[in-house]
Amino acid sequence: MKKGLFITFEGSEGSGKSTQIALIETELKKKGLDVLLIREPGGVKISELIRKVLLDVKNTEMNNECEVLLYMAARAQLVGEVIRPALACGKVVLCDRFLDSTIVYQGYGHGMDLKTIQDIGAFSTQKVRPDMTLLFDIETEEGLRRAGQNKDRIEQRSLDYHKRVRSGYLQLAKEDPGRFRVIRVDRGKEEIFQEVKAHIEHCLSQQ
Amino acid sequence: MKKGLFITFEGSEGSGKSTQIALIETELKKKGLDVLLIREPGGVKISELIRKVLLDVKNTEMNNECEVLLYMAARAQLVGEVIRPALACGKVVLCDRFLDSTIVYQGYGHGMDLKTIQDIGAFSTQKVRPDMTLLFDIETEEGLRRAGQNKDRIEQRSLDYHKRVRSGYLQLAKEDPGRFRVIRVDRGKEEIFQEVKAHIEHCLSQQ
Repeated sequence: MKKGLFITFEGSEGSGKSTQIALIETELKKKGLDVLLIREPGGVKISELIRKVLLDVKNTEMNNECEVLLYMAARAQLVGEVIRPALACGKVVLCDRFLDSTIVYQGYGHGMDLKTIQDIGAFSTQKVRPDMTLLFDIETEEGLRRAGQNKDRIEQRSLDYHKRVRSGYLQLAKEDPGRFRVIRVDRGKEEIFQEVKAHIEHCLSQQ
Repeated sequence: MKKGLFITFEGSEGSGKSTQIALIETELKKKGLDVLLIREPGGVKISELIRKVLLDVKNTEMNNECEVLLYMAARAQLVGEVIRPALACGKVVLCDRFLDSTIVYQGYGHGMDLKTIQDIGAFSTQKVRPDMTLLFDIETEEGLRRAGQNKDRIEQRSLDYHKRVRSGYLQLAKEDPGRFRVIRVDRGKEEIFQEVKAHIEHCLSQQ
């Protein structure tokens, strides 16, 4: 049985990653590939219930440990129920955010211990690891400007917080150049899409 | 500032622990102590939202990793928002279930790695540890019979599962006799209550 391909999309608010995921999903389906697009946190019923608790702006009293564990819980369910079975039957799984998001938003963003978050992450993901991660990098102020007015609980945080998130992402990419591809987004949508497509086609050709 | 006292109540379904907690709460309040009674999972708004997801019988597809992480998330919020502040201002905190429940129900019950669950537990509890744990021990079949018909998602599990839970509890008590007190519940309510009261009074006198 052919093993599938697991590609994750990471990036700060306003980086345009969701637009690009939608474009690449259409492109890959046109090629006849069996593609599954999912988003984190969420993607299955239980994880969507958890997502609601996480992103509700009324839940301002949530502490950092609870936040980390809820993201990890939603991810555990998504991996077990959808990602692992899909990869086992050879699908191309495109995932809008994955473990790297928790490492940068909670670890780098809140200054929590990175090793602990990674250990909990290994438990949560049942060691399923992306084959490739596309990081959409945008200058923080510009990203927040693009993300606009309808901010959820995470997006409401301070500029400094979002700057730590961005530099956390770039640090992860530096530490794992085999998995990460950093994509500059200060360009036209079509130009970015061509780069995304090239990276994914290369990854498919390596299988 | 005087440090409070943190007492947890553990035991299988139908062990009568909730009845005893209510009795001891009344007793301690009569003595003029500042008592806080909480239950796990739940106890604060965010943890109650998580509790709903955990115990809903419709969520049968929940995997073990997700379940562990949700219990830990609810606990993290409860510790940060209620338990730690209450202990810091000298209250007696009575908690219906705590980390030991996850270790036995998920660790021993599902055969998951105990060390991993303990590590995630240390993160979740922010290292807040009970001063004393009262374990209400009941023979498994009798406990399930007493728990009756309105079973939640956890109580619906098999007899073997509940037997592993019981022996997990007894194992924990054996490994940490300084913290655990095992209370046999095949006796009258009043007799059990006298024993519970004696243990707690001893614990208070040691402060």
